[in-house]
Amino acid sequence: MKLNIALLAGDGIGPEVIDQAVKVSDAIAQKFGHEITWKPALTGAAAIDAVGEPYPDSTHEVCKNADAVLFGAIGHPKYDNDPSAPVRPEQGLLKMRKALGLFANVRPTFTFPSLLDKSPLKRERIEGTDLVFLRELTGGIYFGEKGRKDGGDTAFDNCVYTREEVQRLAKKGFELAMTRSKKLCCVDKANVLETSRLWRETVQAMEKDYPEVEVSYEFVDAVAMRLVQWPNSYDVLITENLFGDILTDEASVISGSMGLMPSASMGAEVSLFEPIHGSYPQATGLNIANPMATVLSAAMMFENFGLMEEGKAMRDAVNKALEAGVVTEDLANGGKAYGTKEVGDWLAANI
Amino acid sequence: MKLNIALLAGDGIGPEVIDQAVKVSDAIAQKFGHEITWKPALTGAAAIDAVGEPYPDSTHEVCKNADAVLFGAIGHPKYDNDPSAPVRPEQGLLKMRKALGLFANVRPTFTFPSLLDKSPLKRERIEGTDLVFLRELTGGIYFGEKGRKDGGDTAFDNCVYTREEVQRLAKKGFELAMTRSKKLCCVDKANVLETSRLWRETVQAMEKDYPEVEVSYEFVDAVAMRLVQWPNSYDVLITENLFGDILTDEASVISGSMGLMPSASMGAEVSLFEPIHGSYPQATGLNIANPMATVLSAAMMFENFGLMEEGKAMRDAVNKALEAGVVTEDLANGGKAYGTKEVGDWLAANI
Ligand SMILES: CC(C)[C@H](C(=O)O)[C@@H](O)C(=O)O
Ligand SMILES: CC(C)[C@H](C(=O)O)[C@@H](O)C(=O)O
Repeated sequence: MKLNIALLAGDGIGPEVIDQAVKVSDAIAQKFGHEITWKPALTGAAAIDAVGEPYPDSTHEVCKNADAVLFGAIGHPKYDNDPSAPVRPEQGLLKMRKALGLFANVRPTFTFPSLLDKSPLKRERIEGTDLVFLRELTGGIYFGEKGRKDGGDTAFDNCVYTREEVQRLAKKGFELAMTRSKKLCCVDKANVLETSRLWRETVQAMEKDYPEVEVSYEFVDAVAMRLVQWPNSYDVLITENLFGDILTDEASVISGSMGLMPSASMGAEVSLFEPIHGSYPQATGLNIANPMATVLSAAMMFENFGLMEEGKAMRDAVNKALEAGVVTEDLANGGKAYGTKEVGDWLAANI
Repeated sequence: MKLNIALLAGDGIGPEVIDQAVKVSDAIAQKFGHEITWKPALTGAAAIDAVGEPYPDSTHEVCKNADAVLFGAIGHPKYDNDPSAPVRPEQGLLKMRKALGLFANVRPTFTFPSLLDKSPLKRERIEGTDLVFLRELTGGIYFGEKGRKDGGDTAFDNCVYTREEVQRLAKKGFELAMTRSKKLCCVDKANVLETSRLWRETVQAMEKDYPEVEVSYEFVDAVAMRLVQWPNSYDVLITENLFGDILTDEASVISGSMGLMPSASMGAEVSLFEPIHGSYPQATGLNIANPMATVLSAAMMFENFGLMEEGKAMRDAVNKALEAGVVTEDLANGGKAYGTKEVGDWLAANI
């Protein structure tokens, strides 16, 4: 296969972890006979510094014309805690999601047996957890009308959803559930919100098309609880943008493997793959960042092209490294810590 | 002191746990020389069944004219999973909050040494946790305009906040922080929402009036994570209605003492006190529900009248019962389980 991949390394540790994912992906390409052309482009604080914008048109061109986007991380302390700054890296993120139509954010939370003890939860609570959130990513209160009235003393944010937006996200949820344990949980706040009632009635109407899928409906506050109590009682969960923002982050810390969690944002045309961790500015350039989440994101990318064996080969390499203790500082447990680059080299050599 | 207390027992186990709180409060009144007049009124499914409305005007009259409201729990399975039913118990709750102006929901999460092992979190993560959420309760997306367009295919919910609404909630937060460790965390999503930017700028402007309070600003998704990772790193947190709904429920399960957590909803005139647990319909009438959260809610009520010794006496009785193993099934750990009524009797006798 010939693959054109847009490469958005971003800020902080982004470039370092992306380098390793490229290295391991190239090893995959060589072994399985594919040809990958990487197309680097600017984003985040790096793009603001260079051209004054976090998601410049030139970057959008590169992404739009690529077969997929591999993304590092964005965010820089100089833009932190000043939500009213005129240009901010997050704006680039939101603009990119909307411009590329990345409507479904796929966020798995699973456990690695060797990392269970890193979880804040007791072993018996977290063992066996393997869930996936599908978060709607281009609608809701993130993109509704917002502004001020009364000379600035009143602020508003409008949350809007159309039936079609719910359907296309829910469809992905049902389809994913069919490939897994056929359990789907729709997370909403239908006892209070009209948008949630639209979500619920839309999903309810789709149930008949997937008679094998068992659908449950839970309120967002109840899910926030059960995620901590019995995370392994969930399988596929679908939800709107803001609830997804909160719950996927909550879910990410329960496994103890946050530094290893990949994600995908799927669009109708192009899809984007990125680790869920941030840009970790303090670690920039120190060769200590864990590249595994980015490597596993690249594995999701291959699988999304239908290249299942390739994806599996990458996952196997990561598992092997974990077992062999070829890990960065965050997972070294007082033992030997390898550098970001060394872990990348080892993974590439073990493909 | 002469106290007129509206008594809204509600549904499910509500009446049983309320009975115990009344019994223990009466013991307090007798010991400390107060006179409590209890004014029962209908609410929830019980009120729908009786008069067709979950918060009838007659109940509002009783609450408005009372010095405080003691509330049990509402909710009944026959109204579950049908968010579009014309009359629902939750509507009564929202109507009551708005009508009584209960703008600040106070939700402490603390630990009992003897219950630490009930937490889903590892001991070292949860030990020492003692935090309080102040959730704004009468504004935001709960009460903004909501509806449908495009023949029902588009739904919207508007989130609105005024500077004044933020100020009165934040004021309570600063004041509470002054009585505790002087740390205040403002939880928002100011990188995305205009209402959050209003929250943040309003709180920032108030900082100068409380120079001793150290204020931090965190995004809601980050707090959803840190609550699971390091709950004991928080003290007082203030936030808007929907974020508060999700985060307070998340916080409630981490301690392992959810069945013991009280809450208060403060208004300008009257305030309301209730356990955070639900109506637990399956346990109705079985004399197995844990009355301690309701008793501790009554303790908060006394303290809110400035009757600190009275509140402490109730807390002490609960602690003593926990140590003596005079507990309901949920805390019995395979040991002897006392009935709801028997725990109430024991607490009253130990005042
Ligand atoms: C940075 C922020 C705008 C973003 C979001 O809220 O979507 C982030 O939290 C995420 O989840 O990707
Ligand atoms: C029942 C529901 C409307 C309510 C809310 O969302 O406020 C409940 O979850 C709560 O937190 O008291």
